[in-house]
Amino acid sequence: MKVGIIGPNNKICSEELYDFGVQLGKQISAVGRTIICGGLGGFMEAVCKGVKQSDVTFKGQTIGILPGENSDSANEYIDISIPTGTGITRNIIIVRTADILIAAGGGAGTLSEIAFAWQLGKKVLCVTLFDGWAKELAGRNLDHRQTGLLIPVNNIGEIVDHLDNG
Amino acid sequence: MKVGIIGPNNKICSEELYDFGVQLGKQISAVGRTIICGGLGGFMEAVCKGVKQSDVTFKGQTIGILPGENSDSANEYIDISIPTGTGITRNIIIVRTADILIAAGGGAGTLSEIAFAWQLGKKVLCVTLFDGWAKELAGRNLDHRQTGLLIPVNNIGEIVDHLDNG
Amino acid sequence: MKVGIIGPNNKICSEELYDFGVQLGKQISAVGRTIICGGLGGFMEAVCKGVKQSDVTFKGQTIGILPGENSDSANEYIDISIPTGTGITRNIIIVRTADILIAAGGGAGTLSEIAFAWQLGKKVLCVTLFDGWAKELAGRNLDHRQTGLLIPVNNIGEIVDHLDNG
Amino acid sequence: MKVGIIGPNNKICSEELYDFGVQLGKQISAVGRTIICGGLGGFMEAVCKGVKQSDVTFKGQTIGILPGENSDSANEYIDISIPTGTGITRNIIIVRTADILIAAGGGAGTLSEIAFAWQLGKKVLCVTLFDGWAKELAGRNLDHRQTGLLIPVNNIGEIVDHLDNG
Repeated sequence: MKVGIIGPNNKICSEELYDFGVQLGKQISAVGRTIICGGLGGFMEAVCKGVKQSDVTFKGQTIGILPGENSDSANEYIDISIPTGTGITRNIIIVRTADILIAAGGGAGTLSEIAFAWQLGKKVLCVTLFDGWAKELAGRNLDHRQTGLLIPVNNIGEIVDHLDNG
Repeated sequence: MKVGIIGPNNKICSEELYDFGVQLGKQISAVGRTIICGGLGGFMEAVCKGVKQSDVTFKGQTIGILPGENSDSANEYIDISIPTGTGITRNIIIVRTADILIAAGGGAGTLSEIAFAWQLGKKVLCVTLFDGWAKELAGRNLDHRQTGLLIPVNNIGEIVDHLDNG
Repeated sequence: MKVGIIGPNNKICSEELYDFGVQLGKQISAVGRTIICGGLGGFMEAVCKGVKQSDVTFKGQTIGILPGENSDSANEYIDISIPTGTGITRNIIIVRTADILIAAGGGAGTLSEIAFAWQLGKKVLCVTLFDGWAKELAGRNLDHRQTGLLIPVNNIGEIVDHLDNG
Repeated sequence: MKVGIIGPNNKICSEELYDFGVQLGKQISAVGRTIICGGLGGFMEAVCKGVKQSDVTFKGQTIGILPGENSDSANEYIDISIPTGTGITRNIIIVRTADILIAAGGGAGTLSEIAFAWQLGKKVLCVTLFDGWAKELAGRNLDHRQTGLLIPVNNIGEIVDHLDNG
């Protein structure tokens, strides 16, 4: 199972959210999931850091789908970087690749990714602990074509339960 | 000036919104603007229909940036179809190409386009007459990196004023 | 009919090829075709210049599908610029959009576009007057899945004949 | 080091080339490289099969960057599938992601990928044992902007030597 991570980059990620991301990454690594993210800093980096600091991580567990033309911008915890050279267009590839997504905090970039996930019929676990679009949209329906995809989660335990149950 | 049109496709566009789109297209054509849209049905088609029914329209005034691999899905009022073969990824190209955007109604697709416009720093004239994300987000700020880009508009006259001054 | 133009950019376009492009553009404009190209300099610019210098050109006759994130790099003869923000990935959109293509001269970029056209089953009029991949591949088959798509043309008159009959 | 694999899909891949691919995959796996490919059948599948049949393969060693909107078309030896939803546009992402590429056989698709690699300045090890564009272009320069990137290789031993030294 590939778990997509969407949330603030290093410009707008709070320290509290970063710490949450590291703890989340450790738990995801423990249950053996592969991480798909945008490969940059902030919440993406935090989760990858947690994954790679786990005792049971494996080579190829963190995948970064980058906006740039090369891998220079990848955070240091990315195992496999995929430089698309297509800018924010890469956000759609992240959503397509993930089997399920976790969103936390979130500005306009995260909002666009949640909207894509909705269009593609993918579940998004929306963390309610931090201000931003993930919290605001948790439990809402974005339009009448889908229902119930934006699932509120209040802590890491609930996230792991959802990953275990698909 | 290229005016981007974003809103519901034919599956979720109401008759009332379609009629509004046709009237809007006539006015935009009268002031000589080029239309950039996703090229399909619903609100996109309505605006293009209004443009091409104008007495002063010119060949090349309606541009449809299509998701598919060929032009078969273009509505009949598209002068120039651009089949990208990249699915909803093409939404970002619409936003990049437009100098200013008009949004009305709106499900998750429209929401993602408004979020892109915000990321790229483009103004979106958000029509307040129809339910959907355009109305809900009119006047809001999506995050702290931009401000004031989502401009509420209450009728076609206000839209034309913005196009004249934008 | 949309005519795709592929060939050297300003770094490797000879003066002779540029002059040929301007004359070609004038003839294409005279027969009312829309031009689809990459929007930059060299052969693309030359053809657009010829089109816009024609007495019968119309607004919206030259379309530039740009690699960059905005329209700054478009040549001055582009009526409608489409900044894709996806780098050379935009080459595929050019080929998809064109109903028929004209190739002249050509380095690796032109070679990749001819190869795409072949994959998509589109005819390419390959000018034999200038060294490069257009000349080298004129009349060849790139693999066994298509045949006869790379048509040698020896002068502008032959090109216009093909556009009239194509 | 990420090794890109380009060559015929299952429609035009010979049995001989497929067998070569399996042997090649076993050797690449033995030296610990990650494989980046288009994720479908033919030569891509053969190399992935060889990798996964190796005693020392690891989870996450074969990455398939798919043209489709989901992972259904991935061959069974792909560890991580990345469905781009962008059709053959994904070929460019394969080339960008790879640090070095191996090409064998080859129709128009392989030709376009070799041309991209040239544009991006990446080395391509061109196998000379099978008819197709890889053999035909081995040792050639595609234009005057790069030189020496298309390296002829005559057997698997030479490929492994290049990967060790590249």
